[in-house]
Amino acid sequence: MPEYTEFLTTEKFDGFEDPVKYEKEWLPKVIAYREALARAIDPKYAIDLPKPIEQLVDDQFNSLDYLYKSNLLTSEELAITETSATELQKQLASGSLTAVSVYLAYAKRAVICHQLTNSAMELFTDEGYERAKELDKYFAETGGQVVGPMHGLPISLKEHYAYRNKVTHASMVAWVDNVTPEHCVTIQVLEDLGAVFYVRTNQPQTLMHLDSNNNFTGLTRNPFNMKLSSGGSSSGEGAIVAFGGSTMGIGSDIGGSIRSPAAFSGCFGLRPTSNRVSLAGAVATISGQESVLGVCGPLARSVEDIDFWMKHYLNNGKPWDLDGTLVRMPWRELPAPSVSGLTIGVIWDDGLVHPTPPITRGLKEVVNKLTKAGAKIIDFKPMKTKLAYETVHKMYNCDGNALNKRVLGTSGEPLTKLTKWSLNYGDGSREYSTTENRELNYIRDNLRLEYTKYMVDNKIDFLISPTYCNVAPVSECVYSWSYTSLFNILDFPTLVFQTGLFLDSEIDKWDDTFKDYQFRSELEKLELEQYDPQTFSGAPIGLQLTSRRYHDEEVVAAGKAIVELLGVSLYKK
Amino acid sequence: MPEYTEFLTTEKFDGFEDPVKYEKEWLPKVIAYREALARAIDPKYAIDLPKPIEQLVDDQFNSLDYLYKSNLLTSEELAITETSATELQKQLASGSLTAVSVYLAYAKRAVICHQLTNSAMELFTDEGYERAKELDKYFAETGGQVVGPMHGLPISLKEHYAYRNKVTHASMVAWVDNVTPEHCVTIQVLEDLGAVFYVRTNQPQTLMHLDSNNNFTGLTRNPFNMKLSSGGSSSGEGAIVAFGGSTMGIGSDIGGSIRSPAAFSGCFGLRPTSNRVSLAGAVATISGQESVLGVCGPLARSVEDIDFWMKHYLNNGKPWDLDGTLVRMPWRELPAPSVSGLTIGVIWDDGLVHPTPPITRGLKEVVNKLTKAGAKIIDFKPMKTKLAYETVHKMYNCDGNALNKRVLGTSGEPLTKLTKWSLNYGDGSREYSTTENRELNYIRDNLRLEYTKYMVDNKIDFLISPTYCNVAPVSECVYSWSYTSLFNILDFPTLVFQTGLFLDSEIDKWDDTFKDYQFRSELEKLELEQYDPQTFSGAPIGLQLTSRRYHDEEVVAAGKAIVELLGVSLYKK
Repeated sequence: MPEYTEFLTTEKFDGFEDPVKYEKEWLPKVIAYREALARAIDPKYAIDLPKPIEQLVDDQFNSLDYLYKSNLLTSEELAITETSATELQKQLASGSLTAVSVYLAYAKRAVICHQLTNSAMELFTDEGYERAKELDKYFAETGGQVVGPMHGLPISLKEHYAYRNKVTHASMVAWVDNVTPEHCVTIQVLEDLGAVFYVRTNQPQTLMHLDSNNNFTGLTRNPFNMKLSSGGSSSGEGAIVAFGGSTMGIGSDIGGSIRSPAAFSGCFGLRPTSNRVSLAGAVATISGQESVLGVCGPLARSVEDIDFWMKHYLNNGKPWDLDGTLVRMPWRELPAPSVSGLTIGVIWDDGLVHPTPPITRGLKEVVNKLTKAGAKIIDFKPMKTKLAYETVHKMYNCDGNALNKRVLGTSGEPLTKLTKWSLNYGDGSREYSTTENRELNYIRDNLRLEYTKYMVDNKIDFLISPTYCNVAPVSECVYSWSYTSLFNILDFPTLVFQTGLFLDSEIDKWDDTFKDYQFRSELEKLELEQYDPQTFSGAPIGLQLTSRRYHDEEVVAAGKAIVELLGVSLYKK
Repeated sequence: MPEYTEFLTTEKFDGFEDPVKYEKEWLPKVIAYREALARAIDPKYAIDLPKPIEQLVDDQFNSLDYLYKSNLLTSEELAITETSATELQKQLASGSLTAVSVYLAYAKRAVICHQLTNSAMELFTDEGYERAKELDKYFAETGGQVVGPMHGLPISLKEHYAYRNKVTHASMVAWVDNVTPEHCVTIQVLEDLGAVFYVRTNQPQTLMHLDSNNNFTGLTRNPFNMKLSSGGSSSGEGAIVAFGGSTMGIGSDIGGSIRSPAAFSGCFGLRPTSNRVSLAGAVATISGQESVLGVCGPLARSVEDIDFWMKHYLNNGKPWDLDGTLVRMPWRELPAPSVSGLTIGVIWDDGLVHPTPPITRGLKEVVNKLTKAGAKIIDFKPMKTKLAYETVHKMYNCDGNALNKRVLGTSGEPLTKLTKWSLNYGDGSREYSTTENRELNYIRDNLRLEYTKYMVDNKIDFLISPTYCNVAPVSECVYSWSYTSLFNILDFPTLVFQTGLFLDSEIDKWDDTFKDYQFRSELEKLELEQYDPQTFSGAPIGLQLTSRRYHDEEVVAAGKAIVELLGVSLYKK
């Protein structure tokens, strides 16, 4: 493993940054963009902050706790925003709730979330309100018909999904004027199903951080501890969904970008198997890259809502009619299985970066409950994780960052710390030949065969693993993608679920066996040396549940069973 | 379009051929291989040829006609080999036929087929016999249980599928000693379902011809006119399945390699959507190439048997448990639709190479019958076929033929004419960068979106098109892949079906409208100038039926309806 400092160099990346050009030609547009966002915070929904943001960060402020304790919402608003999408939809369909009443509660909570966590990239609450009114009008005029199964549900959107007649820049300054005339496929499907849109959320420069920094709006903060990161690259989605500012949201994931924000921010997120949910029309610098496919998937506050989203998106939305690159695979509705019949492999350590104490505690508690409930637990040492890690990281950059260079170099915008980090992945600026790229694909396919065979031969239904070596990191200090990117190269569907546990600075200390721990790499050293229970206090502990390719339905069904067993509910009763 | 002669040069391909090395180090092994094949023709099954092969070729001999008229088979053998696999399986399962009796009839017919058409690459009829005996023993000992739904069905295999403890060389001399210790996934699945294996079939050098020539065993002849090609690259499969030497066979298709032999040789063949049927363990020089995916699929003498193969292979075989690169998608059993409810787009001309008279006549007859039956027919001018053609041909060679060079150069074997032709596809020996390769993928994905949208917006259920501009070509004179490779780049499932029509040299002449036809390219000139009704006399007229990705079941179901409407049966009553 090269030294940390080498990873933060841009020496190899001539032609990216150009401060003079950036400040003259581009910064004014960026400032205008920021100002528009600030203006879009409608006073009708906004609160007065209890302290300046910097102080809240220093205080490791728990924004959700504050929301509840300070009664920022009326009891009706609270009731609405503490109800699952699955349940809300029934109330909307029966007419016991109007789309406008649902919308107003969520818009308020979303704006408060943004004020505290900086979750939004774009707010358009007026448009959402108009849409909600139209839906109510439709409902009234048709004698109680809904537009579709998502009628009236406020849904948040990662900015990188193209939105009709709005700018989609994917946190790249060069795209600050990129107005997309049509919705991308997934937004179109959700709109056709009746969803209400009002917020597009934050993401990092290049989309290749498990964090959020960018030159437009900067960092998104963790709702449970504002000193920490909300994760990334679906950074704003993690924060807004966990905070309850939307019923559900959509992220995207090529190395952990749905799962890291779900785990860090404290909600649920599904990375489906590739090509089930459409990414067509999402804006990024990876067009045509298919060695490791990005996927679109939902974040929500319950597994039921993940199931609800997938079922209606696929079975009612039929996205394959709009996007010819998708697999035509309806969602199979499965009952939650009996935990006692499950065989689960547990990854206690991937051999690359050992988990910190709260993660190991989370795994142990889950395993204890599963064991008591009769599940068969197998300690699973994942195969060839170093090869998988190195291969997938080579894949990310095997165009020698050509597209990133073209787009970043156009504006000359400053590279954030984690952009530098990820530009150095693999062989960084060296462009692979087609043959070299094919060799990576060949390694990938053999890994898929080997893991599939192992799970089939050993009758392992699911894997449980850390999402990351730690809970939510300090912003801009998340380096290792090893636990998440393994399932990108394998293309295994993975649900991040909450254990209901949070870091407890009294409990989650390294035990004596780690006194003389020898770091296995610079990467591990870098990650583990920053661990300090006090810093991460209160961060949620979220884990991954995984199965083989196209077993998405099984993962979600088992996720329901496990979450029920753990007694986790993110809704305030 | 470059001139024809330029396409047959190897000037750009230094390091491929090495006559001295080849003759000294490799030719003896090739000769030994040929001799082993000749010795494997068991006299118990073989016939005396009516004339030397060269004369039969000159005579444009119809080998199937000869089989029937000369009573080469007993009436029991004929009855067995003129029964569909779907029906045979019932008789095997009920005990009214033994596996041995079925096997002996097919082994005989397969050997005769090989003697006449040169369809086999490897014969092992002794092993097949032992396997059939074992299956009968199992049936007797278990009181009438079958091993699986393919119990006792003789199935032929393209040589490029790795077979346990046999050489798999994919018609590359350098691999003449490549003994593969395990079955590839698809052969393993078929064996587990009860299939009987006894023949592996011919294919061209590099697998990239719609024809069959190679340095091991040379050309496979068309069963209906021995002067013509059986197609390729699943060359031997086309011949043996059409001749009735196996119940069903497996081919592979990256540019037309299942469909061309099915159409030319006179049977049915399905190119499924990618990643439904396993290619894992198939040997070729394209490992890791995924811009245009090769697919495995069945050839058979009826659409029912294609359906039978897909259903049992997927639903009983569950290949995704063995091959983690597959889509987990069981086969949906669909009834044949009513033709009157179908909307069918017809490609009369792809704008690149105009069809010859028999193909146009075939299209017209089918369209007339469909129209009479109430189907809605739309003349469909396919979009951007030149871009699609150029892009897919660039994809084939975008590693600059690096792997082909490595393997062909190892033996220095002579390059056949059509190997030279296909090595010149795209940019030939220039290796693409990852970025250039991604640009091809991006074009491909946009083509998929555009064709999908067009079919959805216009409510087109299926497309009918030529398989090739002509019927079966003269050997080594098939150049244009435009009609087949379009559906490889789109990844649309496509069934080749027989129209029941054959080239009639009295009817199938260019009409007057073609007197002053201006060729649109050198490629079109090359293809169409060779047309002469007499040469192609008696060749079957097979067409393509296509739908959108993952509509394989719909294609097969509609194929049944259309074939029934046309009154086509390939079984002698």
